[in-house]
Amino acid sequence: MRPSIVLFGDSITEEAFGEGGWGAELANHYSRSADVVLRGYSGYNTRWAAMVVRRAVVLGAAAAPAPAAVTVCFGANDASLPDRASRHQHVPLHEYKSNLRAICDTLTATWPRVVVILITPPPVHDAARVRYQYGDGCSGLPERTNEAAGEYARACVDVAAERGLRAIDIWSKMQRFPGWESSFLRDGLHLTPCGNRLVFEEVVFALKDASLGLDALPADLPLFCEMDPNNPVKSFDE
Amino acid sequence: MRPSIVLFGDSITEEAFGEGGWGAELANHYSRSADVVLRGYSGYNTRWAAMVVRRAVVLGAAAAPAPAAVTVCFGANDASLPDRASRHQHVPLHEYKSNLRAICDTLTATWPRVVVILITPPPVHDAARVRYQYGDGCSGLPERTNEAAGEYARACVDVAAERGLRAIDIWSKMQRFPGWESSFLRDGLHLTPCGNRLVFEEVVFALKDASLGLDALPADLPLFCEMDPNNPVKSFDE
Repeated sequence: MRPSIVLFGDSITEEAFGEGGWGAELANHYSRSADVVLRGYSGYNTRWAAMVVRRAVVLGAAAAPAPAAVTVCFGANDASLPDRASRHQHVPLHEYKSNLRAICDTLTATWPRVVVILITPPPVHDAARVRYQYGDGCSGLPERTNEAAGEYARACVDVAAERGLRAIDIWSKMQRFPGWESSFLRDGLHLTPCGNRLVFEEVVFALKDASLGLDALPADLPLFCEMDPNNPVKSFDE
Repeated sequence: MRPSIVLFGDSITEEAFGEGGWGAELANHYSRSADVVLRGYSGYNTRWAAMVVRRAVVLGAAAAPAPAAVTVCFGANDASLPDRASRHQHVPLHEYKSNLRAICDTLTATWPRVVVILITPPPVHDAARVRYQYGDGCSGLPERTNEAAGEYARACVDVAAERGLRAIDIWSKMQRFPGWESSFLRDGLHLTPCGNRLVFEEVVFALKDASLGLDALPADLPLFCEMDPNNPVKSFDE
C-alpha cells in the first residue's frame, strides 16, 4: 500500500493542482510511490484550521494507513491587517503561533512518526494587493502587507523549531530572487507557476531530508523498463 | 469523508499529473469535493493490468471507502504491432477484450455502485512514431500505427457497451480536429497539454453524466465565500 503525503493549508494549498501547481508536480514526482492528498481550504486562517484539523486530516485518513508526511501552510490569511478589507481573516500573532502548535500537536499525537513540514506564508507585494484587493476595494490601501506576512513567517519558523519540525521559509527564499514580486506572485499574494516550482523543489528537498525521497520509497508494481522483454510476466511472480 | 476517483491505466494515466495533465486538472476541479487517486503504470498492457488490478486498485483502496469512480485506460500498448520493436507489449485483440472485461468485472464485483469509465487508446501519428520510436530504433517502421490503435479503440467501446459502462473514445474524438497529430500528441503517442485538456473535459462530462458532477458532490468544510464575515466561526457549528 502506498504511503500518502497530505497537503493541509489555505489557498496556496487548495490551488496546488492548478496550472504548474506544486501539489500536481509532487503527485507527478511520486507517481509510482506515494499518494498526494489535497486538503486545501481557501481563505482559512489557523483559527479555523485548528478547529477542523481533526475532521479534515485525521478522520479523512482514519481508515487508511498513517500518512508519511503532512505539509501545513497557513498564515497568509492570519496576517491580513486587522483594520483593512480582510479583517475577518486576521488572527493575532500570538494566537497564530498557538493555533499552529495545536495543529502540529494533533498530527504528531495521532501519528507519532509522521513528518510534519511547516510552510510559511509567501511574501506579499503590497502594490499589487492594492490593484487586486478584496472587499470594498477602493481604500487605496493593501489588506495584506509584506511586513505583516514576514512576522507570521518568522513565527511559523519559530514554532517549527520549538516542536523539532522542518520548516520551509518561502517568505525569505522567494525574496532572494530579484523580481520576486511578479515572477513568483500573480496578484501580490498567490503563486505563479514559477512560485509553485520553488515550493515544489523545497518540499521535495524536505521530504528527501526526512528519508521520504524517491530513492527511499519503493515503486508500486514492477517498472516496465525493468521487465525482461523475453518474459515480462515473470516480473509479477515475485 | 470525500469520495475518491481512481485513475487506472498505462502511461496516458501515469503522466496525468505532468504539465497540463488531465489528472491534475481533475484534482483541481474537485479540489474541495473528491480525491483523485493515481494508479498509472507506464508500458503496461491489459494482460499485466488484469493480473494486478486487485493489488493496484482494489487492495489499495480496501481500507478506504469504495471509490465513486474508476477510469480505465489501456490499449495503447496492447496495440503495439506483434512484429516490431514493442512486440513484447502486444496483446492480441480478442485477449485485449477479455482482459478488459476481467478488469471491469473485478471492479464492479468489488464495488457494485462504482462508476467505471473506459477510455480508449489515443490515436497514433505513424510518422512521428518512426521519429520517436522505441527499441532498436532504426527499422524505419513505426512500432505502433493509427490503424491498429483504432481496432483496439473500437474493441474498448464494444466492451463498455457489453457491460453497460461509459466509454470515452478519444481515438475518434481527437481525429475530428484538423492537426490532431501535433496538437494533441507530442511524440505521435503521448498527450500534449492540449490533448490532456480534451481528456479532462471528456472525463468531467462523463462524471457529471454519472451524477458525480461538482453540483452533486458536497464541498468538504464550509467555503470561505459562504461564511458570515461578522461571525465566520458560526459556519463550523453546523
